[in-house]
Amino acid sequence: MISERLKRQIEFLLEADKMKSLYRQTYIINDEKRSESMRDFDGDDSLHRRRENDAEHSFHLALFAMTLAEHANIPVDLLRVMKMVLIHDIVEIDAGDTYCYDTEGYKSKREREERAADRLFGILPEDQEKEYRGLWEEFEAMDTAESRFAAALDRMQPMLLNFSKNGISWQEHNVSYSQVHERNKHIANGSEELWEYMEEALKDALGKGFLKDE
Amino acid sequence: MISERLKRQIEFLLEADKMKSLYRQTYIINDEKRSESMRDFDGDDSLHRRRENDAEHSFHLALFAMTLAEHANIPVDLLRVMKMVLIHDIVEIDAGDTYCYDTEGYKSKREREERAADRLFGILPEDQEKEYRGLWEEFEAMDTAESRFAAALDRMQPMLLNFSKNGISWQEHNVSYSQVHERNKHIANGSEELWEYMEEALKDALGKGFLKDE
Repeated sequence: MISERLKRQIEFLLEADKMKSLYRQTYIINDEKRSESMRDFDGDDSLHRRRENDAEHSFHLALFAMTLAEHANIPVDLLRVMKMVLIHDIVEIDAGDTYCYDTEGYKSKREREERAADRLFGILPEDQEKEYRGLWEEFEAMDTAESRFAAALDRMQPMLLNFSKNGISWQEHNVSYSQVHERNKHIANGSEELWEYMEEALKDALGKGFLKDE
Repeated sequence: MISERLKRQIEFLLEADKMKSLYRQTYIINDEKRSESMRDFDGDDSLHRRRENDAEHSFHLALFAMTLAEHANIPVDLLRVMKMVLIHDIVEIDAGDTYCYDTEGYKSKREREERAADRLFGILPEDQEKEYRGLWEEFEAMDTAESRFAAALDRMQPMLLNFSKNGISWQEHNVSYSQVHERNKHIANGSEELWEYMEEALKDALGKGFLKDE
């Protein structure tokens, strides 16, 4: 006899498969395979590069978390951080991705994401719905050591991919050094050490012309 | 001053980006976007579907782990399981994916993967190299509660995707019900409850003709 509980858990896990088809603004670094044989699947055929999707981003963040946890300002509960980064973007299945420099989109973001959280976490058994919802709210609020560290990784990872791709997604969105610096400086709230690294990298990006100065 | 340690950690994390370009035999469930505007990027254009990559697979397994941990036969250290599933396929960056029903490929698999583990985990600081290598060896050996549960999820996840896609990757490789049953029955070593679910699903797949009987 298969329990109702297990059925709901599996339904949620299969729903999460949609994360693999939600594309972000950031490009993956290694697209050699695409250059050889791939074609457009993200609306940007001519450039021989492809965007990262939410599943890949979440995977990468979880790996960042386990590899960089020692650099958090305050010792963190790593399991909690990893759970948080794995589910923090699931609401985008219904609410879509909002590019972090899109100020218009940000106005309706919260409302869209609340509705998405109701439906998506609602697929789970009640205790897990509560846990996952709580992790997502915590991530959004950024008022614990874990969520501040998770948020730092969430900003740092796309910046690193962007550096590795000569800043193309910044250029596409006409983003300046000061905007990127302002937007990402709260990395320091999660990890001063990682922000120090990223500031160095940002200066380097400016020097190389990957980011415009104004 | 950026530490050598942090530089090595970031180098490893950027190397792991390659997981996003390593395609498996399994297809993702939700490829509506691809059907509309995507083209081939995995050598299978005509079919309007796309394969899953290692980053997506690892993301999905970590989500499986945190959602299904209660079904493990023996209570598991969830953090350990999650770390394990996140790094278990990293060796494929150098060693490639070996399809689980490819008996020829399996002969050289271990040797190729050992070399890959030397190079890839070797990018990390020594203590982390040791930890990640240990997690990978543990996963491969399947002799702890954590690795048996992780291995169960690693078998279960592609089976579930396959069911949701009417068994296409089984048909492509001409795999029979008894092969799939034999290959996956060790799921029960990690979780009898999950294997019970999968056996039901397998019977269902046979009844629907997704798997051939012989």
